[in-house]
Amino acid sequence: MTLTKRLAAEFLGTLWLVLGGCGSAVLAANFGGDGNPLGIGFLGVALAFGLTVLTGAFAFGHISGGHFNPAVSLGLWAGGRFGAKDLLPYILAQVAGAIMAGFILLQIAKGGGGFTIDPSAAGTFASNGYGVLSPGGYTLGAAFLCEVVLTAFFLVVIMGATHNKAAAGFAPIAIGLALTLIHLISIPVTNTSVNPARSTGVAVFAGSGAMGQLWLFWLAPLIGGALGGIIYAWLRPNNE
Amino acid sequence: MTLTKRLAAEFLGTLWLVLGGCGSAVLAANFGGDGNPLGIGFLGVALAFGLTVLTGAFAFGHISGGHFNPAVSLGLWAGGRFGAKDLLPYILAQVAGAIMAGFILLQIAKGGGGFTIDPSAAGTFASNGYGVLSPGGYTLGAAFLCEVVLTAFFLVVIMGATHNKAAAGFAPIAIGLALTLIHLISIPVTNTSVNPARSTGVAVFAGSGAMGQLWLFWLAPLIGGALGGIIYAWLRPNNE
Amino acid sequence: MTLTKRLAAEFLGTLWLVLGGCGSAVLAANFGGDGNPLGIGFLGVALAFGLTVLTGAFAFGHISGGHFNPAVSLGLWAGGRFGAKDLLPYILAQVAGAIMAGFILLQIAKGGGGFTIDPSAAGTFASNGYGVLSPGGYTLGAAFLCEVVLTAFFLVVIMGATHNKAAAGFAPIAIGLALTLIHLISIPVTNTSVNPARSTGVAVFAGSGAMGQLWLFWLAPLIGGALGGIIYAWLRPNNE
Amino acid sequence: MTLTKRLAAEFLGTLWLVLGGCGSAVLAANFGGDGNPLGIGFLGVALAFGLTVLTGAFAFGHISGGHFNPAVSLGLWAGGRFGAKDLLPYILAQVAGAIMAGFILLQIAKGGGGFTIDPSAAGTFASNGYGVLSPGGYTLGAAFLCEVVLTAFFLVVIMGATHNKAAAGFAPIAIGLALTLIHLISIPVTNTSVNPARSTGVAVFAGSGAMGQLWLFWLAPLIGGALGGIIYAWLRPNNE
Repeated sequence: MTLTKRLAAEFLGTLWLVLGGCGSAVLAANFGGDGNPLGIGFLGVALAFGLTVLTGAFAFGHISGGHFNPAVSLGLWAGGRFGAKDLLPYILAQVAGAIMAGFILLQIAKGGGGFTIDPSAAGTFASNGYGVLSPGGYTLGAAFLCEVVLTAFFLVVIMGATHNKAAAGFAPIAIGLALTLIHLISIPVTNTSVNPARSTGVAVFAGSGAMGQLWLFWLAPLIGGALGGIIYAWLRPNNE
Repeated sequence: MTLTKRLAAEFLGTLWLVLGGCGSAVLAANFGGDGNPLGIGFLGVALAFGLTVLTGAFAFGHISGGHFNPAVSLGLWAGGRFGAKDLLPYILAQVAGAIMAGFILLQIAKGGGGFTIDPSAAGTFASNGYGVLSPGGYTLGAAFLCEVVLTAFFLVVIMGATHNKAAAGFAPIAIGLALTLIHLISIPVTNTSVNPARSTGVAVFAGSGAMGQLWLFWLAPLIGGALGGIIYAWLRPNNE
Repeated sequence: MTLTKRLAAEFLGTLWLVLGGCGSAVLAANFGGDGNPLGIGFLGVALAFGLTVLTGAFAFGHISGGHFNPAVSLGLWAGGRFGAKDLLPYILAQVAGAIMAGFILLQIAKGGGGFTIDPSAAGTFASNGYGVLSPGGYTLGAAFLCEVVLTAFFLVVIMGATHNKAAAGFAPIAIGLALTLIHLISIPVTNTSVNPARSTGVAVFAGSGAMGQLWLFWLAPLIGGALGGIIYAWLRPNNE
Repeated sequence: MTLTKRLAAEFLGTLWLVLGGCGSAVLAANFGGDGNPLGIGFLGVALAFGLTVLTGAFAFGHISGGHFNPAVSLGLWAGGRFGAKDLLPYILAQVAGAIMAGFILLQIAKGGGGFTIDPSAAGTFASNGYGVLSPGGYTLGAAFLCEVVLTAFFLVVIMGATHNKAAAGFAPIAIGLALTLIHLISIPVTNTSVNPARSTGVAVFAGSGAMGQLWLFWLAPLIGGALGGIIYAWLRPNNE
């Protein structure tokens, strides 16, 4: 595959991730207001995020590898599975796709009754946050620890499920459902990032609050991703 | 396989899709009324729609290809995966199966206490709608955009997961769960179509409101489906 | 495999089906009473039933074929996939396993606070019913139609997913999730049977109400199962 | 693989199991308090536990076998699938990973508003319990029976799905979703253990109540695990 088409696949896959994951959060999580059990809740949002990656990896995995996430690209590089020269182009394509998703989602959301963006509210437009912008009011320290640890394990699962000794073909299921699991744990803490592109794609539309905290959702996932890649590469090198 | 048996498979598969997806919406989504957490909610309906396609594709995929959806047949034709001469017969079989499903579902639903069809109510008998007939009151423009974009991505996933470089056997999982994901995002917007047959199968029983808006749920999914097929065919032709 | 071990597998698999499906319904569906969102609801019960079959088919499928259901054994016989001489032994093993599950579940349930069995209440001890014993008050006619149609499609999915042209290994996923889908549609109608052994296993402990209606949950699933087996055998014979 | 790396995989996998399963329970199950449908409830926790094993088994299964649970290691030994000399090291690594998970989870949870540990409350810090410490107030006898039976079936599914006649590659799906199913049934009874390491990992931080009942969550799962291993080994020896 040419680099252009691989970048197009990363653009589309990350667009799908943010449109699906953040879209379900913005449009469907709390349908009808508090107390209405028709809404899909955090469980539905967790499932949606995971299914974007599961479906995207089946669709695009054989083109670009299906990263859709700067922390994944960095972690795979740290783990010796991805070349340094493609790292920056991949990350740029991912961020562009994520912002395009945020833009499309905004056009849909504005068509519904009562949609608002409040930069001082936790989770506004599916943005990530800590402290007063954490859904459950978690501190910066807890948010940082949570994002580092979960991104590290995300990379460990990715490295393990795509190892050449792993059962072929199953990796999209393992990786997608790992992202579902990560959201089941941590939506209350940070609204769950583990993906700087996902955070950026909605933060640019969510106002000053989310933008001011965006640094953490680059720093912590990148540290965690690199850590996970290194740990797994030690645990089982790919040619072992 | 003869064309007759392939059309029978499309008829049965689309019947299953509408019976399962719309059936869960009509019978189980809001069980016991607002505030009763026993009902399956939008999350359960999203899962049901996806599982109709997952299970139907495993059962019928090796007979007819498992489209169950005019937008899928059109998109696969646009993407160079399906012959023009079978397009119309497939679509007719799909619509017939969907209407039969609507008929069966109506017989079951009428046997329960308090079942009614109100043509002026959003989502009546699981019908699709925009404006006053959108579950969340979304405008025609938001509904159109949402249906086009989600159907396009649905076709991208279908084209990718069934590409000859993709892992064999997994396509029904990817495609079925893509439909679940699409519903997790967009039930509040249009009650989710991305499938003109599904919309038609219940609209004919749902009264004047749904019938008057049915054009959108043919036009938008067909445009989106063709778009998705073309995009993926550019991204990775099947023999590449 | 000897017939003894195959029957042991059917006994254990059906025990697992009833213990898991009915157990989740009795113990966890409505945890904490109406309005408490911690309970797993009909969605959780639907998932549990499906997962009993998914996991049981992976564990026992290569021993006994993994029927766990008299309507499945009959339907596979009607579809030419199962020998007549094993039909009765299989059904007896299934019913015995189901009753053992009901007995174990009763011992656990009685250990909790406030557990009661009320033979005049819909769904008591996870029993199936119609009319006043239907969770949503559905008539005998609606219940019968629903059980016939859903069991028929269950067999169609089973026949299709285990066809020698289907992707090998995936059948337990397709079949298990088909059962989840069937429950997502029809718990409000009959509490969902599609399996005479499952109905019998709890009815014998649920009192006169469930026992008096048990005939329907043998008759309708057996008719539906045979119908589904015959339809699929016409659609695609196994050696085609 | 060296024993060191296999133990590291068991340590990390069990850490992931407890962090994900207990983490979702502590952080997300009851988000916003009773009556708020955004929380993931018992259904979300059941899914989370299962997905830790599904993803962990894909990531680590080809290194250590992916036990993550002393009852699994013992059951596989009883069933003739695991050597006696590795039993103790595996169990120690599992318990160490579980305690590390409890420690990390505690640091995150303490960063949220209103987090408390009350040793006399059922399910505090996701601990297991019976009697007054059972979520649904189940007696010691019911809790013991429930843990024995469910752990036995867990081992039966594990033995069956990893049998050399079973479809290769699917075992992590079958085993992970079996753990989801087990939680769907039994969270109300004991908060679900079937895993002494999981129970220990949170009990050491949950105070005197959980520690005083921890014996049951070693004894019952170990008995059940051994039972399940023996039953399946009789049903179908691995070389048959």
